Amino acid sequence: MRRIGVLTSGGDAPGMNAAIRAIVRKGIYEGCEVWGIKRGFAGLIEGDIVPLELGSVADTIHRGGTILLTARSQEFMTEEGRREAFASLHRAGIEGLIGIGGEGTFRGLLTFHRETGFPVIGVPATIDNDIGGTDYAIGFDTAVNNVVDAINKIRDTATSHERTFVVEVMGRNTGFIALTAGLAGGAESILLPEFPFDIEAVCQRLMRGIRRGKRHSIIVVAEGVGSAPAIAQEIKQRTGLETKAIILGHIQRGGTPTVFDRVLASIMGARAVELLLAGEKRAAVGLVGGEVKHCDLEEALRTTKKIDEAAYKLAEILAI
Amino acid sequence: MRRIGVLTSGGDAPGMNAAIRAIVRKGIYEGCEVWGIKRGFAGLIEGDIVPLELGSVADTIHRGGTILLTARSQEFMTEEGRREAFASLHRAGIEGLIGIGGEGTFRGLLTFHRETGFPVIGVPATIDNDIGGTDYAIGFDTAVNNVVDAINKIRDTATSHERTFVVEVMGRNTGFIALTAGLAGGAESILLPEFPFDIEAVCQRLMRGIRRGKRHSIIVVAEGVGSAPAIAQEIKQRTGLETKAIILGHIQRGGTPTVFDRVLASIMGARAVELLLAGEKRAAVGLVGGEVKHCDLEEALRTTKKIDEAAYKLAEILAI
Amino acid sequence: MRRIGVLTSGGDAPGMNAAIRAIVRKGIYEGCEVWGIKRGFAGLIEGDIVPLELGSVADTIHRGGTILLTARSQEFMTEEGRREAFASLHRAGIEGLIGIGGEGTFRGLLTFHRETGFPVIGVPATIDNDIGGTDYAIGFDTAVNNVVDAINKIRDTATSHERTFVVEVMGRNTGFIALTAGLAGGAESILLPEFPFDIEAVCQRLMRGIRRGKRHSIIVVAEGVGSAPAIAQEIKQRTGLETKAIILGHIQRGGTPTVFDRVLASIMGARAVELLLAGEKRAAVGLVGGEVKHCDLEEALRTTKKIDEAAYKLAEILAI
Amino acid sequence: MRRIGVLTSGGDAPGMNAAIRAIVRKGIYEGCEVWGIKRGFAGLIEGDIVPLELGSVADTIHRGGTILLTARSQEFMTEEGRREAFASLHRAGIEGLIGIGGEGTFRGLLTFHRETGFPVIGVPATIDNDIGGTDYAIGFDTAVNNVVDAINKIRDTATSHERTFVVEVMGRNTGFIALTAGLAGGAESILLPEFPFDIEAVCQRLMRGIRRGKRHSIIVVAEGVGSAPAIAQEIKQRTGLETKAIILGHIQRGGTPTVFDRVLASIMGARAVELLLAGEKRAAVGLVGGEVKHCDLEEALRTTKKIDEAAYKLAEILAI
Repeated sequence: MRRIGVLTSGGDAPGMNAAIRAIVRKGIYEGCEVWGIKRGFAGLIEGDIVPLELGSVADTIHRGGTILLTARSQEFMTEEGRREAFASLHRAGIEGLIGIGGEGTFRGLLTFHRETGFPVIGVPATIDNDIGGTDYAIGFDTAVNNVVDAINKIRDTATSHERTFVVEVMGRNTGFIALTAGLAGGAESILLPEFPFDIEAVCQRLMRGIRRGKRHSIIVVAEGVGSAPAIAQEIKQRTGLETKAIILGHIQRGGTPTVFDRVLASIMGARAVELLLAGEKRAAVGLVGGEVKHCDLEEALRTTKKIDEAAYKLAEILAI
Repeated sequence: MRRIGVLTSGGDAPGMNAAIRAIVRKGIYEGCEVWGIKRGFAGLIEGDIVPLELGSVADTIHRGGTILLTARSQEFMTEEGRREAFASLHRAGIEGLIGIGGEGTFRGLLTFHRETGFPVIGVPATIDNDIGGTDYAIGFDTAVNNVVDAINKIRDTATSHERTFVVEVMGRNTGFIALTAGLAGGAESILLPEFPFDIEAVCQRLMRGIRRGKRHSIIVVAEGVGSAPAIAQEIKQRTGLETKAIILGHIQRGGTPTVFDRVLASIMGARAVELLLAGEKRAAVGLVGGEVKHCDLEEALRTTKKIDEAAYKLAEILAI
Repeated sequence: MRRIGVLTSGGDAPGMNAAIRAIVRKGIYEGCEVWGIKRGFAGLIEGDIVPLELGSVADTIHRGGTILLTARSQEFMTEEGRREAFASLHRAGIEGLIGIGGEGTFRGLLTFHRETGFPVIGVPATIDNDIGGTDYAIGFDTAVNNVVDAINKIRDTATSHERTFVVEVMGRNTGFIALTAGLAGGAESILLPEFPFDIEAVCQRLMRGIRRGKRHSIIVVAEGVGSAPAIAQEIKQRTGLETKAIILGHIQRGGTPTVFDRVLASIMGARAVELLLAGEKRAAVGLVGGEVKHCDLEEALRTTKKIDEAAYKLAEILAI
Repeated sequence: MRRIGVLTSGGDAPGMNAAIRAIVRKGIYEGCEVWGIKRGFAGLIEGDIVPLELGSVADTIHRGGTILLTARSQEFMTEEGRREAFASLHRAGIEGLIGIGGEGTFRGLLTFHRETGFPVIGVPATIDNDIGGTDYAIGFDTAVNNVVDAINKIRDTATSHERTFVVEVMGRNTGFIALTAGLAGGAESILLPEFPFDIEAVCQRLMRGIRRGKRHSIIVVAEGVGSAPAIAQEIKQRTGLETKAIILGHIQRGGTPTVFDRVLASIMGARAVELLLAGEKRAAVGLVGGEVKHCDLEEALRTTKKIDEAAYKLAEILAI
């Protein structure tokens, strides 16, 4: 393989740049050229492709977002779009494609490979961490640290005013961010899409905490469970406690990536290059049990990652 | 004066603890006792008052919020409430009262003094910075740094997706946070309650920026101007640009205070003690032109602090 | 088991408080009492032991250091010291002991158990990460993030002045911090005790980087390899490049723990309680392959954790 | 004036980029061209000068260091060097020069103006804050926040081990950083070049603090006073207290600038352009009493800024 293409797609995740850097430098080290495709599959269709040098990724490892830009492409969902994408790759002389992103990215890569036979490798990067084939996706660790940093700030006010705060975090279908940030942030209750919750039990828990002297309460809610303002309103009505809502939104995505995400991205990016060079045609890189492994893209997509029930119970115990 | 009382009231502001610490230690250094009143005027009425030692304020200078807790008291707004507060102070043997807070706190102190003749000193602490008699209130510098930190994170995503973000910050009647954070955050437009704005002009500015190659746009909006989601929607309709809204909310209030706020709080707290000892009866401490000064509480309340129009124009120029 | 004792010993590590909190709350949840021993083995000998309630560990999960204090005890190294420690535990009615710390702590626990038969559990916490039986010790993730945060700051100056910086990090015998922080910080070279290095090769690498346009170079050195100033001097002499040294020292230890360390500490602390209740007599908790496990304390001490050679090579490739 | 040149010189300071950005955009807004000179006076002599566009300074306001690079130039200290610099400016068609830096930069600008009559404006930027004509130089606020952030981290360990730490900060001749960071960091003692100190008094203060229950002590030392390790050694010998030293070094310089420094840099940079356009020939911009003013470069250089003695005394009182 003489020329590798790389793109980022879907929602941006901190650490994507570290992955791009690793792909570029490992690729060049192995004697290949690495070309960058702008704005994900959209740029691929348009042929917005540029050669990347060693220096192109200098001073990027600590930057959030993605220097290759990202977008969601409706066109790539059509067969015609994918045909044009294939033509772009052909014109650019690219022989293998690495896509960095989440489920949508992996699905796009797999469909593209099925239709064209083009070698593709998926590198998992999504702050939601809801992608199979890996214990951790790039960006998740940074996102939960962002959330916990926000909880730290909210706690100052919560304590000073003896208030309850409902903090809404990302996670439409999965509660990975909510559970991990709630456990690390010492939240009194954590509401996840994976487990049903009883608002009355949440309220009783709150009142019990207050009776034993708690000065404040933080409730972390995954967006898939319901909106923070509605839940805060409900709690206020049932308990009479002054309850405020806050939706963290996009500040969860940004910021300089943590060490964990930079290392994960570096190792995964390098491995993606190795897999292409070893002749893999449709693999997904993953960190499984502390080791970098890979599986078929289809397997990664088929696997629904389970939330850690033991951690959920532990969070309840620790917030007694 | 042998015994000084101190309370924090209204919304909490980072640096309040540094002010309490300064009052306690300066007071004790000057041979007084310092007693802390819990939960502002509410605790004053209830007589929730405790003696503070040198060690009571150890390891607090870096903490956000207020160790004395804070609240808003309806009762203190009544004459009867204030009579009870006076009785509490009398019972506790307190001879002078320092209140740390914003406009509501200052107003409460002044009314209380008028009715009882009790010596009161106001120390300005409000992240909104909308209090007269001082260029800077405690907490403002930390709040704007919190906002700019959030803007930094949002920018990563804004750049990667080539999107426009509307960021809503605190400031119901004043745009101090919006202007300072917008200027420091490199915002494309800043919308303040003090100046009318033309949404069409904002949109044209956005489009002009994009034509000259800007990858993203950040618009900072004070909450008094309108809601971020509504403004984002309006911009999207007029320009067709994908525009997202984010409401920063309570994360603006929290976190460890900046050096500026810690120093300001330390100097102001110490000065408040000096003023009480010098026989002042109803003064407000302030930082004016880089020097710690004081004025009559009434004057501080009467003065409406003006937004810096030159800085507003500069922000426009720098965001060309 | 009705009463559990907990202590922290050796160098402090961020996350120790999260582990104490988990032990206290999990212990109480399981129907036990949990008593805290101050200043490690020193306080144990002196009988400086206090009961801990649910509220004793409130608002501690985000604090660096250890609320139980820590120290190194010469006396506990003697048989007589350990006899007194045993007597203290007996007097306090404690039936099982959890020690949070590194190799010295584990060794102390094991010797103590051998002589007295007293049930002991070790929870690994050391920023150096140089303890067997676990992939990650509590505090390591925070420490490497502290280092990388410092490297980010140094990089600004390094770039602006086009200078080389030699950054010395902790690690007398092991290079875990240096390798992980160097990889995540994009260091040009990483010098570890585990691998011999050739200063001439380091210099050639530097010069090669400069020839291809690098504006700055960061070299991360584990303290066990040599002193940063001496290495900087040597590089300057050989290359003529202006080379500065910085020794990060104790700022590596401090700060609020990362999410990773808080979660790790919470899970390990809870598991330590479970192990005591399950009748374990001398176990070490560990995170192995992403799962919480345990082994005999002796095995943990016997195992020398290996540095990840693949990561070391990758760091070299990525810093081309 | 049709073409303005800008350079950064001497030690880098956070906020320099915000100043460059303001100069470029304000200059263009006023109808001028702005050209950037690389590596300070050294690049000026070599003619390393490039035109800057609006977009050249995009996404730089939050970056530490200086995108124009900086250096110290021996050659510019010679008349011949300055003649070549003048020729460079002439060749590039530059009609006015703005230099961003500290005392050395201002001195260079003044000498250059005297010999050539070339219009020069100095913008004060030095983390040491030791430059006349302004209350605050760009970079100082960020530097003290960096120091206090480090003190926060050190405090965790200091408390846990009940140790004394001697923290050495920048300031060869002046104690601005030490005083402000010491006051904000709650240091037990602050040692400055401006005031003589008695090591015995420092030790007695330490011992007094410990007797009243202090768990740790932080002593902040300006580098001009002596080396931290030597002072720590002396304290240990006199008191028997375990005392550690830490030299903060270059991490003080780096990091994203604070809001204060970004706003200060923006306002000062814009004012520098206005001054050039207004026909000023050798002015220094400054923030005096909260307002942006200017004075003659010679006056700025002649003025020795005094340390705030009241703040020094206050720091002593607050650390009782």
